[in-house]
Amino acid sequence: MSELRKDPILGRWVIIATERAKRPDDFKGKPAESKFKPGQCPFCEGNEKVTPPEIMAVRSADSRPNEKGWKIRVVPNKFPAVSIEGNLDKRGYGVYDRMAGIGAHEVIIESPDHHASMVGLSEEQIRNVLWVYRQRMLDLKKDARLVFALIFKNVGDPAGASLEHTHSQLVATPIVPIRIKQEMTGSKTFYDYRGRCLFCDIIDQEKEVKQRLVIDDEHFIAFCPFASRFPFETWILPKQHLTHFENTPQGDLPALARILKQVSVKIESVLSNAAYNLLIHTTPFNMDETEYYHWHIEIIPRITHVAGYEWGTGFYINPVPPEDAAKYLREVSDNK
Amino acid sequence: MSELRKDPILGRWVIIATERAKRPDDFKGKPAESKFKPGQCPFCEGNEKVTPPEIMAVRSADSRPNEKGWKIRVVPNKFPAVSIEGNLDKRGYGVYDRMAGIGAHEVIIESPDHHASMVGLSEEQIRNVLWVYRQRMLDLKKDARLVFALIFKNVGDPAGASLEHTHSQLVATPIVPIRIKQEMTGSKTFYDYRGRCLFCDIIDQEKEVKQRLVIDDEHFIAFCPFASRFPFETWILPKQHLTHFENTPQGDLPALARILKQVSVKIESVLSNAAYNLLIHTTPFNMDETEYYHWHIEIIPRITHVAGYEWGTGFYINPVPPEDAAKYLREVSDNK
Repeated sequence: MSELRKDPILGRWVIIATERAKRPDDFKGKPAESKFKPGQCPFCEGNEKVTPPEIMAVRSADSRPNEKGWKIRVVPNKFPAVSIEGNLDKRGYGVYDRMAGIGAHEVIIESPDHHASMVGLSEEQIRNVLWVYRQRMLDLKKDARLVFALIFKNVGDPAGASLEHTHSQLVATPIVPIRIKQEMTGSKTFYDYRGRCLFCDIIDQEKEVKQRLVIDDEHFIAFCPFASRFPFETWILPKQHLTHFENTPQGDLPALARILKQVSVKIESVLSNAAYNLLIHTTPFNMDETEYYHWHIEIIPRITHVAGYEWGTGFYINPVPPEDAAKYLREVSDNK
Repeated sequence: MSELRKDPILGRWVIIATERAKRPDDFKGKPAESKFKPGQCPFCEGNEKVTPPEIMAVRSADSRPNEKGWKIRVVPNKFPAVSIEGNLDKRGYGVYDRMAGIGAHEVIIESPDHHASMVGLSEEQIRNVLWVYRQRMLDLKKDARLVFALIFKNVGDPAGASLEHTHSQLVATPIVPIRIKQEMTGSKTFYDYRGRCLFCDIIDQEKEVKQRLVIDDEHFIAFCPFASRFPFETWILPKQHLTHFENTPQGDLPALARILKQVSVKIESVLSNAAYNLLIHTTPFNMDETEYYHWHIEIIPRITHVAGYEWGTGFYINPVPPEDAAKYLREVSDNK
């Protein structure tokens, strides 16, 4: 069982993943290449028995669980950071606080075919993936121990992808992560002062000034944020004020699939298939809808080093102004 | 001139380093190797003309600035993230805030010889480096525009070191970085509640439980923090309650040099010369001594990937419990 521990200075929690415990020798040299010979990828159709049994799947009516005939599979992570069984066992040791590593760590295999990212998928398939995200959130929300779930995607080795085959992950925890708490606090402060949703104001301003705009669609907007930490960082937001990702109307999923594919094609094209992370920030499970928070997607290309200055300060040095990044992204085709 | 921009949601500032502006093509492929043929390293003795003119140096009485005969040189960074000339020019654009990229970005060349880290230096030389850090902080503190300086060190390419020759950097800014603000707020909250310095309490607890202890010296302590984000993360703190690094009594510098060398030797030895960052967290220039904050050094080995989950949440997954890491570090020799 892994352990959740709180830094008493910052209130930041970490997962001490004892089940993955490593000796110093394990870090010597480069990590093993995680590419498989054709037919051996554990996420490809036909290799269903290599993964833990599926939690849910989008599959044809005449197929059976953990066999061929699926479009999307959700399986538990084989090396989970947190485990679903057990109780929280909260304890203090002097100034320190800890609890058991309870939570869910799931893998969403986005396609039976061996694509390297969402760019290889049809819009319809991406819509199915988004629908699966939604269903998993709605399901995990019923577990009273869990208060937040992050859905994220690592594309490419420098972004931490241990398997190439296109997949996302979901980690649900009994703690609201510090970044989400900070976003909540920041946007609440703005709301208390100005009486409006900060994210809605940002959308209005980006639509108007256009400099950082990537795509301005009917239901969603994509832009490079004013204070981008990383070159070509891009956010996608619903234009309608929506607090919880899982409450996105089903009718909006095709438009979200379309913009997500367009942005992914553009980023991979401009950056020649550079590594990136994608993540969905949404309101915690244990909070109702608010006037101040707005779910959104952040896409972070991993093309620059994060060095001592960034780790020491939380202050990022970005060599590409977002206005330049957005111009490159606007001008490149979104057709793959 | 670069620009400082504030993320309106988190209050996190970034540096948009327009003078380093890059096109997407610059990110294609791996960065160029930054090793030099013998004699061509810009930080080696004899190549003083390759760097910008020195700001200060520890050099023999009969030598001249920007010539041979030095032990330590401080020079402006050739590609500075911030510039010392100009005024802050604070402005708002709708919901966004910005100011000019004013500040200091200096490089401390720690040795005339081409060592790859502090491990190659004598304790006496490290003491000189620490003295130089102190002098630079005291000098920059006089500039009323600057409120904080981070001293940091990148060792190895994965840690962001663009030159191999052992050196540190100093970035002083007109903004207190968000991480420092958060540490201040967290330790102040503890102080208001318990009436003691949290860092002093941590030192007492680590000395008593011993599990995470690396070195317990008369004036300084080194341990792996309870909620370590990274495998083998190690902190060094003065045992005496000291808020400002630059106020460390000169008489304590030999002991600090000794523990810093011992810890560096141990980390490089256990991790076979893995990359790491070292950074000094201290009280902002514009704050007096407090009862609640305590300067410290954080050493962060860069041996694991930081992936979507970490970027999305600020929640770290660490596969090595700090108790195990400390045991390895205690047991390995500190002799090089």
